Amino acid sequence: MTGLGVPALPSWRDGTTKAAVLDFIRSVTEPGDGFVPAGERIATFDNDGTLWCEKPMYPQADFLVRRWAEQVEADPTLAAEQPWKAVAEGDRGWLASATDHVPELIKGVTAAYDGITTVAFERAVRDFFDSARHPTLAVPYTGVAFRPMRELLDLLRDNDFQVYICSAGGRDFVRVISEEMYGIPREQVIGSGTTLEYRAGDVYRTKGVEQPIDDGPGKPVHIWTRTGRKPLLAGGNADGDASMLESARFALLLHHNDAEREFAYDVGAEKALAAAAEHGWTVVSMRDDFATVF
Amino acid sequence: MTGLGVPALPSWRDGTTKAAVLDFIRSVTEPGDGFVPAGERIATFDNDGTLWCEKPMYPQADFLVRRWAEQVEADPTLAAEQPWKAVAEGDRGWLASATDHVPELIKGVTAAYDGITTVAFERAVRDFFDSARHPTLAVPYTGVAFRPMRELLDLLRDNDFQVYICSAGGRDFVRVISEEMYGIPREQVIGSGTTLEYRAGDVYRTKGVEQPIDDGPGKPVHIWTRTGRKPLLAGGNADGDASMLESARFALLLHHNDAEREFAYDVGAEKALAAAAEHGWTVVSMRDDFATVF
Repeated sequence: MTGLGVPALPSWRDGTTKAAVLDFIRSVTEPGDGFVPAGERIATFDNDGTLWCEKPMYPQADFLVRRWAEQVEADPTLAAEQPWKAVAEGDRGWLASATDHVPELIKGVTAAYDGITTVAFERAVRDFFDSARHPTLAVPYTGVAFRPMRELLDLLRDNDFQVYICSAGGRDFVRVISEEMYGIPREQVIGSGTTLEYRAGDVYRTKGVEQPIDDGPGKPVHIWTRTGRKPLLAGGNADGDASMLESARFALLLHHNDAEREFAYDVGAEKALAAAAEHGWTVVSMRDDFATVF
Repeated sequence: MTGLGVPALPSWRDGTTKAAVLDFIRSVTEPGDGFVPAGERIATFDNDGTLWCEKPMYPQADFLVRRWAEQVEADPTLAAEQPWKAVAEGDRGWLASATDHVPELIKGVTAAYDGITTVAFERAVRDFFDSARHPTLAVPYTGVAFRPMRELLDLLRDNDFQVYICSAGGRDFVRVISEEMYGIPREQVIGSGTTLEYRAGDVYRTKGVEQPIDDGPGKPVHIWTRTGRKPLLAGGNADGDASMLESARFALLLHHNDAEREFAYDVGAEKALAAAAEHGWTVVSMRDDFATVF
């Protein structure tokens, strides 16, 4: 194992969680029963709530709401239907529960940037990250990564892991900032996507959604499709990560229980927390195990 | 550019083709207008007919025909329908023209290994490569790679290109031998696939076909999905590669015109050859540009 000469994971408090992570990395990198050759070491991490803050709203939701507002301003007739109606009326309740309205949500997501090239989409995402700020932390969204998790990504790479993001959110959204925020190159970002079409030198976004969505049991499917392997180590924080965590040799589940430094919530993670107890996954208490959060 | 200290591409004859390839690599690796940073250098290669011999039949077709024969032996009622009928009757004509019978072909392909895990499928592919031999070259299929192309892959990697396979054939078929034959790790194999499903720790093959198929305009779509980039250099040999070649900055088209050392055929490459002339792609004459083929 590399990276133990200097104190490893300096933003993690010493304790059983940190020790379990270090023991696992040691077990796959040092000679012994658990050893895995360098080229086969794959780690996959959920993004929202695992590598960066997902409250009070997903950063990608903020990106979409801004776009829907632009669209409804350009064409007020859109306000007749969701999700543009909620944006036009300032209906935060509907927007906060958008995942309960999947057909309308998907319609809004795929219509937001339909028909443009992937390169033009990347420019729109870049503009968002260059201008938007997190609503409560008062920093750009590129500043809301969890420092202990970034240290863990570095430590895994130092130990010849290939580190992937595996996000239920948009692959082409996350790719724009994955390198600068996490040192993860765009080809190692796995996520959901709209359907795409090639014409005369360019790839265009179209109105469909790639199946399966990269959530729940779709996560290990995407990981196989992209890497041809199961993850050796996986990290998540929510019910949608449970299948990915189950498929990994070592599973890490972040528990958002630090209302003071971040947010405290179990909603959407109840099943994952129960599965963690059942399967012996390593649960990270953000309050107790993180010396620093951001 | 790296790799010019020793003679580069020793199995390529000196001439305009080899010079064009070396000039291009030099143009993206040395300071100047064409320079591309190391992390952004992506090269993509078709497999059948580009990296290995695809005649008299695709290696994957041989793999499938053997499986269909096993299936029809186990269940003779299958002989009532294609493609098992052709196998049972020894109808080489039907099998040779199977790509003209897409629905039956897809039915046969997806039924061949339906419902098993990706790991069990990999074992079946491994058994095939360990036992089958190319029908005319009299070597295992792992011996039918084109040596000049393997040298090109090495040279590209020496110059910090990430080298991907982008095959219309099965991603999970090619992955099994990509590392040993080409030095390409499984996560850098792009290709077509059946649909997949995750259950209780394993990924299972199901009866559908992932859309789009990784052929024609599907190739640049898959390349975007997997890498988030357009290829800087792409290599192909057939009409199904034309969109990928068009999307690349530098395009290489292998022309199979060496009946003595390999096979000579333009069928299925007519449009690609015409596009090469129109767009100025670099055409590799296997007869004249390759000093050695295998």
